[in-house]
Amino acid sequence: MKIVIVGGVAAGMSAATRLRRLSEDAEIVVLEAGPHVSFANCGLPYYAGGVIEERDALLLQSPESLAARFGLDVRVLSRVSSVDTAGRTVTVQGPDGVAYVESYDELVLSPGARPVVPNVPGSERMHVLRDVTDVDGLVTAIRGARTAVVVGAGFIGVEVAENLVRRGLAVTLVELGDQVLAPLDPELAVRVQDRLESNGVAVRVGAQVVAVGEQHVELADTQGTSLGDVDADLVLAAIGVVPETALARDAGIAVADGSTGARGGVLVDADLRTSAPHVYAVGDAAVKRDALAAPHRTDVPGDATTTGWVPPSDTVLIPLANLANRHGRHVADVIMGRRSGHRPAQGTAIVGVFGLTAASTGRSEKRLRAEGRDHRVVHTHPVQHAGYYPGAVPMALKLLIDPATDAILGAQGVGEDGVDKRIDVIATAMAGGLTASDLMDLELAYAPAYGSAKDPVNMLGYVADNLVTGTVRTVQWHELDALDGALVVDVRTPAEHSRGTVRTAAGPALNLPLDELRSRHGEIPPGARVVVHCQVGQRGHTAARLLTELGHDVVNLDGGYLTWRDGARAVRSPVPAA
Amino acid sequence: MKIVIVGGVAAGMSAATRLRRLSEDAEIVVLEAGPHVSFANCGLPYYAGGVIEERDALLLQSPESLAARFGLDVRVLSRVSSVDTAGRTVTVQGPDGVAYVESYDELVLSPGARPVVPNVPGSERMHVLRDVTDVDGLVTAIRGARTAVVVGAGFIGVEVAENLVRRGLAVTLVELGDQVLAPLDPELAVRVQDRLESNGVAVRVGAQVVAVGEQHVELADTQGTSLGDVDADLVLAAIGVVPETALARDAGIAVADGSTGARGGVLVDADLRTSAPHVYAVGDAAVKRDALAAPHRTDVPGDATTTGWVPPSDTVLIPLANLANRHGRHVADVIMGRRSGHRPAQGTAIVGVFGLTAASTGRSEKRLRAEGRDHRVVHTHPVQHAGYYPGAVPMALKLLIDPATDAILGAQGVGEDGVDKRIDVIATAMAGGLTASDLMDLELAYAPAYGSAKDPVNMLGYVADNLVTGTVRTVQWHELDALDGALVVDVRTPAEHSRGTVRTAAGPALNLPLDELRSRHGEIPPGARVVVHCQVGQRGHTAARLLTELGHDVVNLDGGYLTWRDGARAVRSPVPAA
Repeated sequence: MKIVIVGGVAAGMSAATRLRRLSEDAEIVVLEAGPHVSFANCGLPYYAGGVIEERDALLLQSPESLAARFGLDVRVLSRVSSVDTAGRTVTVQGPDGVAYVESYDELVLSPGARPVVPNVPGSERMHVLRDVTDVDGLVTAIRGARTAVVVGAGFIGVEVAENLVRRGLAVTLVELGDQVLAPLDPELAVRVQDRLESNGVAVRVGAQVVAVGEQHVELADTQGTSLGDVDADLVLAAIGVVPETALARDAGIAVADGSTGARGGVLVDADLRTSAPHVYAVGDAAVKRDALAAPHRTDVPGDATTTGWVPPSDTVLIPLANLANRHGRHVADVIMGRRSGHRPAQGTAIVGVFGLTAASTGRSEKRLRAEGRDHRVVHTHPVQHAGYYPGAVPMALKLLIDPATDAILGAQGVGEDGVDKRIDVIATAMAGGLTASDLMDLELAYAPAYGSAKDPVNMLGYVADNLVTGTVRTVQWHELDALDGALVVDVRTPAEHSRGTVRTAAGPALNLPLDELRSRHGEIPPGARVVVHCQVGQRGHTAARLLTELGHDVVNLDGGYLTWRDGARAVRSPVPAA
Repeated sequence: MKIVIVGGVAAGMSAATRLRRLSEDAEIVVLEAGPHVSFANCGLPYYAGGVIEERDALLLQSPESLAARFGLDVRVLSRVSSVDTAGRTVTVQGPDGVAYVESYDELVLSPGARPVVPNVPGSERMHVLRDVTDVDGLVTAIRGARTAVVVGAGFIGVEVAENLVRRGLAVTLVELGDQVLAPLDPELAVRVQDRLESNGVAVRVGAQVVAVGEQHVELADTQGTSLGDVDADLVLAAIGVVPETALARDAGIAVADGSTGARGGVLVDADLRTSAPHVYAVGDAAVKRDALAAPHRTDVPGDATTTGWVPPSDTVLIPLANLANRHGRHVADVIMGRRSGHRPAQGTAIVGVFGLTAASTGRSEKRLRAEGRDHRVVHTHPVQHAGYYPGAVPMALKLLIDPATDAILGAQGVGEDGVDKRIDVIATAMAGGLTASDLMDLELAYAPAYGSAKDPVNMLGYVADNLVTGTVRTVQWHELDALDGALVVDVRTPAEHSRGTVRTAAGPALNLPLDELRSRHGEIPPGARVVVHCQVGQRGHTAARLLTELGHDVVNLDGGYLTWRDGARAVRSPVPAA
C-alpha cells in the first residue's frame, strides 16, 4: 500500500508515524511545501521572544531522522499542485522546480491553515507567524525595531504581543472586536486586557489597521473613521487562519460552504474521509464534528452520496494542535482498517499572558446567545488552593450549562495559577458526559498547596446544583439594569461596601451585612424584589437563602461584585441583556 | 426540627451550615468535644513547619462567627457520652463537667477518626497531629528539640517530616511497611523516598519503634529484632487513624466488623443513614461505599432490616477531607428530604514532599493483587509541558486498568510539576466512566507552557489503546526475571546504553539502537523471544511494532529503563511476580 500525505507538520506527521508503526510494508510519502517538517508551531511566539533560546529546539524532526526511525519518504519544498482523484495521483512541484506525478493508494490531506492578512495598502509589510521561515523573518525584524503593532488579539496575537514586550518593543495590540480573546466572554477577557495593559501593551479594541506605512500603521474604528497613526517598525497580522482548501476544491472534493460555520474547511465524515474515495483530510484544513451542536441540529442527517459518504451535519473549524495530532493518529488507524468513528471536538484552548492564564473549553456565552440557545451561567472567584496556605491567588471561573439537561456546554477561566487544571477537569467531565451538578461529587486531589477540600470545580457543581434544584435563583451582571425597581442589597461588611459596590439606576446598593441580616432584614420593604450581592457570590448565596426563608423575594447576583465590576468595565462590549 | 450534630469540623460543620441554608426554622446544635470547630486540619503540619505563620489562619470559624452567620448553636468542649436512639437523646458532658441531656429529631454523627498510637513503652511521649491542641504541643516541643522521629511514612508522616526539617530538626522517618506512602506502588514510592533522603530525612522502612525513651527511640525490624536506638527529642506517631465508633457502637448502631476492609467504621447506607432510625454518620467515622469494588462484589445484596435499612455491601474507610465535606453537605440534603443516594468513593489523595508531588486515585497495583483482581498496567515518564519549552521536568505516571472492560481502576503520579492536574483529570475520567483508551481523545488545554499537543493523559490513553487492540504487548519490570531465555534488547543510543541498562540473569541487554533496527535486526537469533526497552517506553513501542512487523516475537518493557530501574531500587518491596 502506498500512502501519500500532503503536509508534514502536526496532523500529517502524526498520521505518517502511526502508519509506519502499524505497517512496515506501507510506502509512506510525505510531501511538505515548506522547508521544515514536524516543527513546534506552538513554540514560534516563544522563540521570537527569546523564551525558547535555540532555534533547533523548534525542529522536532527532520526528513533524515524520520527516514532513519520510521522509514518515511519525507520531501520538503515539495508543493502538491493538483490531485487526480480518479487516477489516484498528485502532481508535485519539487524543490528543483520540476513537476512530477506521484501515485497513491490512499491520500491524506493535511495542508493546514494559513494566516489571514488584511487586504490594506502596505499589507505586504505585515509579518505572519505560521512556520519557521516566518519566525526567522520576525526575529530579524525585531532586531531593528523599537515599536510594533500586532493586529488581532486572539491567542496568537496575545502571545506575540507578550513576546515582543520581552524583546523590549513598545507594542500596540489592535483588535477589531470589542474585546481581547474572542473565545472568552467579555467579563473574563477584561482581566486579560488589564494584564496586557499593566505590562505596557497598548490595547486598541474596536480598531482596525487600514494602511501600513514604513514605520507606522493607520487605524480606523469599525465604521472606518480614522483613529490616527500608531508607530510600528514591525507589524504582525494574527487575525485568524483559513483552512488550505484550494487543492481539495480544485480536485472536486467537497468543501464547507461557510454557511455551516466551518468557513471552507474540507468536509470529512466520522472516519475523516473526504467526498473523494481514498482521500482523507485532517488537521486545520479539515472541518471538525461539533461536540456541542444543539441537539436539534445533530438530528439532521447528512447527504448520503452514491459512495455512501455522509458529510457531517454539524461542522466547525477548530485549528488546534491537540486535535490535529489526535486526528492524524486516527486517520492512520482508519486507513489500516483498525477503527471507525471519532469523538466530536469540543475545543479546549489556553494562553499565558504575562503570568496570567486564560483558558476555555466548549461554548462561550456569546456564542450560545448567537446560536439562540438557552443557557445557564455560573461565575465564581475561588482561590486555587486552600486560602490559609501561603500563595493563594484568585481566579475567575465561568460555567455554561444547558438548563434543560444540566449538561455542561462550556467553561472559561482566568487567573494566576490553577486555571489550566480546572479547565482540563471540566473538559474531561464534558467528555465523560457528567452534568454540571455532577461536578460537586468529583474527588479531586486535595492538600493545602494543591486545592481545597471543596475544590473550585466542586464549588461550580454546588452552585449548579442549587440552580437545578431551585434552591436559589441568580441574576447575571448584565441583567441588573433590567430589574426595574429591585432593591440591591450588599451583604458584605461596611468596609468592603465602602470600597465599591454595585450601582444601578437607583443608586448604590443598600449595605446590610450578612451577619446582621437576621436582625435587620426588617429594613427591607415588604414585597420588595431583592437582589443580594457579596464579593464573589458565596455570602450572597447564604443571604439569599436566609431572606428566602424569611419570606422575601430574592435573587443572588451571580459572581458577586467582582463579576459585576468586571462586566461593567467591559461595557465596551456588553453582552446584550437577555 | 431539631438536629444535633456530633463533631464540628469538616463533615459536621459542612452539614450544619448547609442545613441552615436549607432551613431557617431548624434548631441546629453542634457538639464538639474539642476546643475548636471548623479548623484547618490539613494545614496542621504546615503550621508546625512555619509555612503557615499565623495560628489564627487555622481557625476558619468560631462558635461566635457561626452563631452570627448561620444561627448555629455551637458548643465546644462538649463531649457526647451516649446516644439513646429510642428516646432520641444524647447525653453531653459540658465544659463545666456537668452532664446534660439533649433531645434530637435527627442526629448526625461526625466524630472523625483518632490517630493510632503504638502500644509501646513510653508511647505517652508520642505526639499526634489531629487538632489545634496537638499542634500547639508539637510547636512547643519543636522549640527545644534537635532530633525527631516520625513514626509512619503515610501522607501525614511525610508532611510532618518535611515540616520538621523546615524547623531545622534532624528527622528520622520510621515505617513498618517496606516503602513510604503505601497508597503508591513501590516503583513510584521509591522516588518519594529518594526525595526525602536527599533532603536529609533518614528513612527507615521495615522498622518499628518498640520503645520511646526521653531522648531516643528503640527500633526493631518487623520480626522484632533490634535495630538499635535513634535520637529523638521529639516523637510523633502518624501510623494511621481509626474511626471514632465507640459512641455509635455503645448505642447499638451497626459498625463494620473489620472483615470487609472498613476497620470498624459506622455503617451507613446510600443516604448516609446508620442502622438506627434518625441517626446519620458522615466523615472519617463512617464507612464509604467503594466505587472500585470488583463487579462480582457489588452484586452482593446488603442485609435488609426491618426498617428497610440496607447496609452497603462494599465498604471502605477513606479518611479524606474532600469526602468528609461532600458527605456533610449531602447528609443535610438527605435530612431535608432533597436528595437520595450518593456517589461511591474512589479516594483521591496528594502530598507535597520537598518540591515533589505524589498523588493517587482509585486502586494501586498492590491492592489489586491483594484482591486477586486482573489488571493491566501502564507506566509512562512524560514531561509536564512541551519538551521544547523551558522548564520541562519529567514525572512518573502509572495507570491501572481492568483488562476485561478497559475501565480505569486507578492512577498514580510522582513528579515536580503537573502531577496534580493529571491525577485530577484521570479521577474525573473515572467518575465519568471513560475507559483507559478514551483518555487518548480528551481535549486538554495545550500551549507550550501548560502541556503537550499529546498530553501525558492522552499518551496513557494511546498506550492503553495499543494494549486493548493488541497492537503491542508489554511486560512489567517485575516480570522480566520470569521470562527465562528472553533476549533483552536496548533500543536506545549507545551513549544512553552505556550509562545503565536493564540487566537480567542473562546479563545486560543487547544494544540495538532503534534507528539501526531495520538494518541490524538480523542480529536477533531467529525464534528468539525478544524484550525491547528504551528509556521510558516510547521508542520501545516503535521498536516492538517494527520487530513484530519483521516477524519477531517481541514485547515492550512497560515504562522502559526508568521504571525497571525504579522497581529494581525498590526491591526492598518487590511486587510479587504474577
